Amino acid sequence: MSQLLTGIGASAGIAIAKAFRLEEPNLTVEKKEVVDREAENQRFDRAIEQSTEELEKIKEHAAKALGKDKAAIFEAHSLVLSDPELINPVKDKIIQEGSNAEFAMKEVADMFISMFESMDNEYMRERAADIRDVTKRVIGHLLGVDIPNPSLISEEVIIVAEDLTPSDTAQLNRRFVKGFTTNIGGRTSHSAIMARSLEIPAVVGTKTALKDIENGVPLIIDGQEGKVIVNPEPAVVKEYEEKKDAYETHKAELAKLVDKPTVTEDGCRVELVANIGTPEDVEGVLQNGGEGVGLYRTEFLYMGRDQLPTEEEQFAAYKKVLERMEGKPVVVRTLDIGGDKKLPYLTLPEEMNPFLGFRAIRLCLEMQDMFRTQLRALLRASAYGNLKIMFPMIATLEEFRQAKAILLEEKEKLQQEGAAVSSNVEVGMMVEIPSSAVMADTFAKEVDFFSIGTNDLIQYTLAADRMNERVSYLYQPYNPAILRLIKTVIDAAHKEGKWAGMCGEMAGTEGAIPILLGLGLDEFSMSASSILPARSIISRLSKKELSESIEQVLYMDTAEEVENFVKTRFL
Amino acid sequence: MSQLLTGIGASAGIAIAKAFRLEEPNLTVEKKEVVDREAENQRFDRAIEQSTEELEKIKEHAAKALGKDKAAIFEAHSLVLSDPELINPVKDKIIQEGSNAEFAMKEVADMFISMFESMDNEYMRERAADIRDVTKRVIGHLLGVDIPNPSLISEEVIIVAEDLTPSDTAQLNRRFVKGFTTNIGGRTSHSAIMARSLEIPAVVGTKTALKDIENGVPLIIDGQEGKVIVNPEPAVVKEYEEKKDAYETHKAELAKLVDKPTVTEDGCRVELVANIGTPEDVEGVLQNGGEGVGLYRTEFLYMGRDQLPTEEEQFAAYKKVLERMEGKPVVVRTLDIGGDKKLPYLTLPEEMNPFLGFRAIRLCLEMQDMFRTQLRALLRASAYGNLKIMFPMIATLEEFRQAKAILLEEKEKLQQEGAAVSSNVEVGMMVEIPSSAVMADTFAKEVDFFSIGTNDLIQYTLAADRMNERVSYLYQPYNPAILRLIKTVIDAAHKEGKWAGMCGEMAGTEGAIPILLGLGLDEFSMSASSILPARSIISRLSKKELSESIEQVLYMDTAEEVENFVKTRFL
Repeated sequence: MSQLLTGIGASAGIAIAKAFRLEEPNLTVEKKEVVDREAENQRFDRAIEQSTEELEKIKEHAAKALGKDKAAIFEAHSLVLSDPELINPVKDKIIQEGSNAEFAMKEVADMFISMFESMDNEYMRERAADIRDVTKRVIGHLLGVDIPNPSLISEEVIIVAEDLTPSDTAQLNRRFVKGFTTNIGGRTSHSAIMARSLEIPAVVGTKTALKDIENGVPLIIDGQEGKVIVNPEPAVVKEYEEKKDAYETHKAELAKLVDKPTVTEDGCRVELVANIGTPEDVEGVLQNGGEGVGLYRTEFLYMGRDQLPTEEEQFAAYKKVLERMEGKPVVVRTLDIGGDKKLPYLTLPEEMNPFLGFRAIRLCLEMQDMFRTQLRALLRASAYGNLKIMFPMIATLEEFRQAKAILLEEKEKLQQEGAAVSSNVEVGMMVEIPSSAVMADTFAKEVDFFSIGTNDLIQYTLAADRMNERVSYLYQPYNPAILRLIKTVIDAAHKEGKWAGMCGEMAGTEGAIPILLGLGLDEFSMSASSILPARSIISRLSKKELSESIEQVLYMDTAEEVENFVKTRFL
Repeated sequence: MSQLLTGIGASAGIAIAKAFRLEEPNLTVEKKEVVDREAENQRFDRAIEQSTEELEKIKEHAAKALGKDKAAIFEAHSLVLSDPELINPVKDKIIQEGSNAEFAMKEVADMFISMFESMDNEYMRERAADIRDVTKRVIGHLLGVDIPNPSLISEEVIIVAEDLTPSDTAQLNRRFVKGFTTNIGGRTSHSAIMARSLEIPAVVGTKTALKDIENGVPLIIDGQEGKVIVNPEPAVVKEYEEKKDAYETHKAELAKLVDKPTVTEDGCRVELVANIGTPEDVEGVLQNGGEGVGLYRTEFLYMGRDQLPTEEEQFAAYKKVLERMEGKPVVVRTLDIGGDKKLPYLTLPEEMNPFLGFRAIRLCLEMQDMFRTQLRALLRASAYGNLKIMFPMIATLEEFRQAKAILLEEKEKLQQEGAAVSSNVEVGMMVEIPSSAVMADTFAKEVDFFSIGTNDLIQYTLAADRMNERVSYLYQPYNPAILRLIKTVIDAAHKEGKWAGMCGEMAGTEGAIPILLGLGLDEFSMSASSILPARSIISRLSKKELSESIEQVLYMDTAEEVENFVKTRFL
């Protein structure tokens, strides 16, 4: 009998094939007391070695199948394997307590995993996933249990699993693996990101896939709608085969837009750029026809290490991005750390409300050495491309003035030292705090550009933590209050001859694009994979028509009303 | 030699007298093992009894000297003394562990104190102070050490102490105690509140008063400026004697305004009303010439107990306030709990950012039984006076509509049950979230009034936790963004023929009053003690002149610029 499961569409596209259950090996460990502690310690060392070699192989395979940047995940795994903070406590437990290696490894890993998972921070939760993955591999070697190897699959299948670890995903052979579905995971879990990068349709978080789907049964995956159809009727298979064709035709159409400019139906140009986190992400931007980088989140340079990055390290990263973008604009956001985003080597007091706390520019203006190092690295890199710098979390004009003054001081110092610094570095700010949106006219006189950060702007304007599920109904991009603030910012910029962009999730959202275009937004920054769909949507919209009709959304009562209006009228 | 100490002005006025050091008795306890545990337990019971009797006496004394409402603090102390959660663990330690009573008491109390103090919540920190005070008394009895008795003072003095506990303050004889200064404490500590209620000048938080001031030396206290002058020169004494006369003349002038309406120099009326927390606070409102209650915080009804207040209990409290206010308006805010304001009998999940969390109306719309009970109590009380109801933390129009619909449902039910309900209950909302300020025009069509809650509005608009010292520079009432939002709200109200009030701290602030008056605010709600000074300020301002000139503050760059402008121009 046919059955429908629903989950989260993690990677668009349709897949039709039979199920392949990728089950977890039994890695149950028991606590034992060992007599020869030194021998046990050596057994542990061996397992680490074997795991390291295995990881090396998977990494090579991944580099070929997925590209070098994605294989970087396994670099992270190798780092975990050689991290003394993880490994030494295990050895201590073996040598000092006589614990068996499996149990010691599991105990230490579980402690780190639960610590990282309890941090309400996407990045740290991903670190927990890394540790879980590596631990499985090491324990597998210790127990002599084979960790399943998806690279052995040699017929067309859809993988069904509890979750896919990065190593699982890296071993997938695109020729045979047509899609996957998992019990757990969300849109930003590793497996979801990998699926999008591999362009394999995927539905995650179905909760029951592994329970409901037997090996070998026919399956359909709709990665757009988040649907999994088990044992579909022939008519349904036919319907989805047509959908699959249509999707692929659409994708081919989109691919033609890669080198095209972004132009509305009535000939108006806007800029479609991408959000990146690391220099490696630039490849994806170029492959997807990004016209620049609208948000380079520099935090990642500071994370996963045990001390601040040096000026040289930062310079190298910024230079790499600027060079690879070949003169296309690159907007770099200065360090947005503090609050929930913690650095191990930077001790900050615990705060009751980190989202309303000491972070980003507030912290940089106080820890000026750190800030100046970043600014120097940026200014030196500016000679290699088209750099624009923006400051995060600006709430008052004094803060912007102070940050800009520090930038100019460092620029002057560099010039006195004879360093090459571009004379055209635009200096702008994120608009993500309500006060700066309300005061945009005043800011517009002093900034070169605005970039609206809707994720934070929405959470502050509606006073609702966007990570807190109990108030998630208040995360409303279409709330007319948000749209009014956006309009205020865009109008203020234009009045002073400046440009206004947006680098929140909203900029890449189908329903929001007509509104933003109508309100006059100049630059849309989004994840690389959203660029071509956005270009396609924009090409079908008339800016003139939108400018004339869109303002009515500002006077609607509710977010729901706005969303319905845009959907029925423009999409 | 003369010396100047600075602290926090906790209660205005000038005092000139010699120092009286009120030192802490030595209550060091040592851990001992007792042999006869039962006898030790009885010794503990006796100490509790003696403390209870003593508290009873102090309470009577306080009721006479300070009024019944202030003596209520000692009711809280008696409750602490009979709280099984505090007392039973002490007895357990005596009986089961053979601990001596002093040590057991101290250990248990310290645990509670540090727990309550770590909560970033004024109310809970005050509970910690209560426990500390009570514990001192009990340990004093156990050790046979006299706790100092300030009521023995029989000549004019200024008290110098580490801190004054509520029991200390309650024993102060106004005839002799002319002022006090303490090392610790802030504007909202018990001792500061008591000082204002007793109208004794006080400077708290000097850090070093007890170290720097010897017994019997001449002192001057300036409770307005937060200054303590030790061993003043004769010329300085003369200067302060004149200041004292001027202050007292000013106070006498203010007293004449008690029964006067609030009118500007050019004859425009506004309403000066008070914020209250309990029915007992009404006396202070009337004594200070309040024209109504602008914010009745109903949270206190729910706190310091182990279950929800019943409809009858709430009805009695609301009725009492309405009756005592004799037809003057009483604006009641429905329950604003959750986030940092916790109730022991209401288990809510921990939140990463409680100020952006599940609280106030968000919580009430989900826990509807609790909400409906409050609304029924309010509606029934409405027959006894001039009730207005407002909902806190409204972010979207849907929330207001839903809350109002529930209110109307309960009203209809009550009417069907034959209960008397006023037909003129205005229903309004707090404007304390940026989205509702921005959308005020839309809300104004559906509410009867707005009350702007500046404390929260400022913290959300500038995205800065007002309890977090590291970002306290961003708590800016004069930020032009805040003033623009306030203007938006007032204009929106007036356009629909509604009124707009303000119940944040800003409404009672000297520097803000000219701005708010100029922007057209109709109702100013503040602590009772600010009413007469505000009435006096308003009587010297011309609304016409302000309306013409005040809007320029909206176009200034910074909060500092606004504040300076108002000071030099209007004060």
